[in-house]
Amino acid sequence: MYSGSDTIQKLTILGRQVVEAIERGAFPKIEILNRSTDNIVFDSDTKQFVLGNSKSVRDSSNQKHVKSFAQLMWVASFVKQLVKSGRTSSLRDLYYSSEAFGIDFKDQAESDRIIADLECLTGMARESFGVFPEEHSSIYGKATMRYTVSGYEGREVDLTISPDGLPIGPALMTAEPISADADIVIAVESGGMFSRLIETRCWERYNAVLIQLGGQAPRSTRRLMHKLHDDLKLPVYIFTDGDPWGMHIARVIMTGSANAAHIDDLTIPDAKWIGVSANDIETYGLPTEPMNNTDLKRLEELSKDKRYQDSEWQKHIQDFKSLQRKAEQQAFSRYGMDFVVDKYLPSKL
Amino acid sequence: MYSGSDTIQKLTILGRQVVEAIERGAFPKIEILNRSTDNIVFDSDTKQFVLGNSKSVRDSSNQKHVKSFAQLMWVASFVKQLVKSGRTSSLRDLYYSSEAFGIDFKDQAESDRIIADLECLTGMARESFGVFPEEHSSIYGKATMRYTVSGYEGREVDLTISPDGLPIGPALMTAEPISADADIVIAVESGGMFSRLIETRCWERYNAVLIQLGGQAPRSTRRLMHKLHDDLKLPVYIFTDGDPWGMHIARVIMTGSANAAHIDDLTIPDAKWIGVSANDIETYGLPTEPMNNTDLKRLEELSKDKRYQDSEWQKHIQDFKSLQRKAEQQAFSRYGMDFVVDKYLPSKL
Repeated sequence: MYSGSDTIQKLTILGRQVVEAIERGAFPKIEILNRSTDNIVFDSDTKQFVLGNSKSVRDSSNQKHVKSFAQLMWVASFVKQLVKSGRTSSLRDLYYSSEAFGIDFKDQAESDRIIADLECLTGMARESFGVFPEEHSSIYGKATMRYTVSGYEGREVDLTISPDGLPIGPALMTAEPISADADIVIAVESGGMFSRLIETRCWERYNAVLIQLGGQAPRSTRRLMHKLHDDLKLPVYIFTDGDPWGMHIARVIMTGSANAAHIDDLTIPDAKWIGVSANDIETYGLPTEPMNNTDLKRLEELSKDKRYQDSEWQKHIQDFKSLQRKAEQQAFSRYGMDFVVDKYLPSKL
Repeated sequence: MYSGSDTIQKLTILGRQVVEAIERGAFPKIEILNRSTDNIVFDSDTKQFVLGNSKSVRDSSNQKHVKSFAQLMWVASFVKQLVKSGRTSSLRDLYYSSEAFGIDFKDQAESDRIIADLECLTGMARESFGVFPEEHSSIYGKATMRYTVSGYEGREVDLTISPDGLPIGPALMTAEPISADADIVIAVESGGMFSRLIETRCWERYNAVLIQLGGQAPRSTRRLMHKLHDDLKLPVYIFTDGDPWGMHIARVIMTGSANAAHIDDLTIPDAKWIGVSANDIETYGLPTEPMNNTDLKRLEELSKDKRYQDSEWQKHIQDFKSLQRKAEQQAFSRYGMDFVVDKYLPSKL
């Protein structure tokens, strides 16, 4: 995470470039790296997918570009105000705030895209600008973080303080890990499994920090996991539903997403997926449902995805294709409330 | 909330009735109040909707009933084990746990219905049985609660301890309010508005406990609000999106839902809806979207709903029908980040 003054400086440089072009009597232009799946490449140094070299130009002299150019300028100015005043905004609030300025976003998807453009341009994550999604994951375990958010600066928080877990909101997203008694991180897909692992004291037994992903992990949660892994050297295990979507939740944490390939400090290449794989479904005889067409189509897509070219991942896809069935992680409950903690996790960790 | 021994006692009485019938050589029968909208009546004493007298019989000698009868027995036995061992389960886990026992629930909706049957029979909320939904609301503000959950018994928690708010999970749902420096409760629909009100220190300015509902409020959240209102005498204000769904979130908190009309201690008849009403949309010139067919159909349904027969509520419905447009509570952002706190709330509280 960059400091406020770094952020202000980067935004000021961007603004100056534009103003200088105008003062020279030129139409300002900006080059932005493309964020499509075609333009992500595997960086063997950092072991993560990063953007390739394909760029597009936003040229304010081009009628087709002028709108998105102006939108980008407004977003940059909006977030500069945010950072200056030490405030935050949700993505949705930013979208609505634009109305007062006559900035015509078609919908929130459009304003979200422009924020990603600004991230790309500055090399900074939107969290550095104080812009956050609304959805939150949760965290629980033997670790201590230090808040940096206004009103709580420097205050330390023990992550076992709330037996329901703590939401990873703007405050915890920007907090710094101080220390951990825990040895590992276990990230789980569902809220039910998260509560189960707290209640059964799984965190104590396996000395784990537990994270509830709540589906595809918000970027702020991936960043926090990355910090726990890098700063505190905790290995990360990911436990999801047994379907293409769950597998991809794990894979994105490891290798990144096209959409955030322009952002550093998100991926954890050596994180481990501990199921539920198609193989696990069969080994444990889990209750399953048949895959629907969307599931099968997703498997096809993933089989061609650059992040799945290893033989290990191709095999996972092939296994699901043969099985044509899927299971939730909660399906382990058929063997009793404690099976996951007593039997499944020890065999996987 | 009932104590564990009350719960065990009620479940034991239910089980004994069934066993005694079998020992007499009779097919056990159970009578359950109907929970359809047709069978909710307004109780002027408690100012809430409660179930009427329409009952249906589950007769184990009837082939059509025997399956749901057996399902009910299994659920009763499952939750008795939960309570005995001081454990909890999500609704989803309960559904999956049934598989090991050969209890054939078609889907989770069916197991959820059977749990509601058991609530109806015992007059106890599923929270008393340790059964919770997965989704959580959040809370933040100047109040103190005392945990009753295993491992945290008797520990007090200050609800400002996490600047991201605290999730209302199994632990906070069953905690007891101890004291409040706050004077009111403000419940808001969206997570973005909740974060905004924390960050702008709205809770300090209006001496408020803030609650994020996250759409239609989970029952556990309604129960917690009810406790804050009843035990600590805090008036409750509800701030939602400006559409039929937002209005109904407020109305359910006030008057209850057909689905939970068999449960006590949920409703807050004198809670106040502070918008966004159709009138507010016009007064404040909020950015709007046109209502779609689902919205308009919902207005029609609500206009016939027993909970909307007051002229005040009929007028709200009529206003939306005339306007044919809707607005999110976040639409206030068009007037700047602080407008809600500086202008809108003072005019409404």
